[in-house]
Amino acid sequence: MAAAHVSARDARISALLSTRSTPPGTLIAEGEWAHRCLLDAAGDIETFVWCPELLGDDGRALARAAAGRARASFTVSVKTFARVSRRNRPSGLASLVRLPDWRAGDGVIGGRPVGPGTVVLVADGIEYASNLGALVRVVDASGAAALIVTSRRARVESPEVFTASRGTVLTTPVIDLGSPAQAATWLERHGFAVHLALPGAEGHFRDRPRGDRPTAIVVGSEGNGVAPEWREVPHEAVSIPMRGRADSLNVAVAAGVLLFG
Amino acid sequence: MAAAHVSARDARISALLSTRSTPPGTLIAEGEWAHRCLLDAAGDIETFVWCPELLGDDGRALARAAAGRARASFTVSVKTFARVSRRNRPSGLASLVRLPDWRAGDGVIGGRPVGPGTVVLVADGIEYASNLGALVRVVDASGAAALIVTSRRARVESPEVFTASRGTVLTTPVIDLGSPAQAATWLERHGFAVHLALPGAEGHFRDRPRGDRPTAIVVGSEGNGVAPEWREVPHEAVSIPMRGRADSLNVAVAAGVLLFG
Repeated sequence: MAAAHVSARDARISALLSTRSTPPGTLIAEGEWAHRCLLDAAGDIETFVWCPELLGDDGRALARAAAGRARASFTVSVKTFARVSRRNRPSGLASLVRLPDWRAGDGVIGGRPVGPGTVVLVADGIEYASNLGALVRVVDASGAAALIVTSRRARVESPEVFTASRGTVLTTPVIDLGSPAQAATWLERHGFAVHLALPGAEGHFRDRPRGDRPTAIVVGSEGNGVAPEWREVPHEAVSIPMRGRADSLNVAVAAGVLLFG
Repeated sequence: MAAAHVSARDARISALLSTRSTPPGTLIAEGEWAHRCLLDAAGDIETFVWCPELLGDDGRALARAAAGRARASFTVSVKTFARVSRRNRPSGLASLVRLPDWRAGDGVIGGRPVGPGTVVLVADGIEYASNLGALVRVVDASGAAALIVTSRRARVESPEVFTASRGTVLTTPVIDLGSPAQAATWLERHGFAVHLALPGAEGHFRDRPRGDRPTAIVVGSEGNGVAPEWREVPHEAVSIPMRGRADSLNVAVAAGVLLFG
């Protein structure tokens, strides 16, 4: 079946136009690398648009595969693709992708049961999409159950999150629990030990208690660290010793050290 | 002494103009945060320019302190400052800073003697200035002796390195040893154990040998990992187990896990 050819004015591709923010829970993936990720991760493609004139043989093969998996797919002109693309050099492939609707429910997080071995990373007040993406990648790689975000400032749906996460945002549970108090309520109800990463605290991260309870490791924002609301939650303080001039590590580096340490 | 007031055509500030790359070994630091870093770290300010009209009281106090430490300082108009600034909102403070000339010499690296406890991080083929800066920050925080770079693609002098390193690029030895073979020669001559970070290798990073020799931990580029030339150097392979979909971590995250692990 040949894909329908549409113009930038067609309402069916309006959510992809670069002048718009994507609807909540959806993001734009653009280019060959992103589409390889999407196909590998069985991403949920709502709308796929491609511009045959901009693609070589590899790109066209990818386009056929993506079109076969998308709910709707359209070909567009070079001019229309330019209105979709967020890049200086439009690639010819763009998808509107729906992220899974991950939840923290009763005894369950991100589709997995909460048990004594469950580890979640909590990131508070994250400002930069590139850091949010790197945090998602760390959670994926470490085998933690989910990334919980509180007082979030960066959008999970940002294309930079997709890139910095190397596409793992498609398959890693990222759950916005709102405020620290709301997140703490859920964690407390499920018996989590809460470990706050506080630079300069006494507890060395390697000695943090690893007992018979699920564990939440809380890292703070780039500028301000863990918010005061988190410090009111019953917790253990853990720290990474800083041996140089800097008073903290990049938040994704700190999360990596804590999750793998 | 009142600072001389100069225009954008004055040769004494031409190295600061945003249309230029800075001379090798120098970088531009701009804004209040950067100048606080510079003063704290006793950075070597070659030329300082400031625009009184753009500054509040705090900024003016900083400007006086920076002017007192710079080899040369000048005031400029709002219009001239706009030609210096790399930002959308010019801050009113900019310095041309000389980085220390760190060397790997005979028995010495970055001004410290090489001994059995010496640890260096080697970063091969780094492409992005933000990653290079994050690597510098990790080296600073971990207390490693230096960051050695090989087959470098990002410029150490990039303003992004300054920002991502949180200013620690001013005080952390960053040494470009050229090719992997050149770096390996220096490491071998000094008896270093070379540990290559190879995703999927057998050796878990936590079990890497920590003996009586100095240690070099080698991490690879964002896209391609550690270059084949490094694999020809006698080494131990170390890996961080990847439990999810991603096949690697961000290079600064991996360096953090390895240096603190």
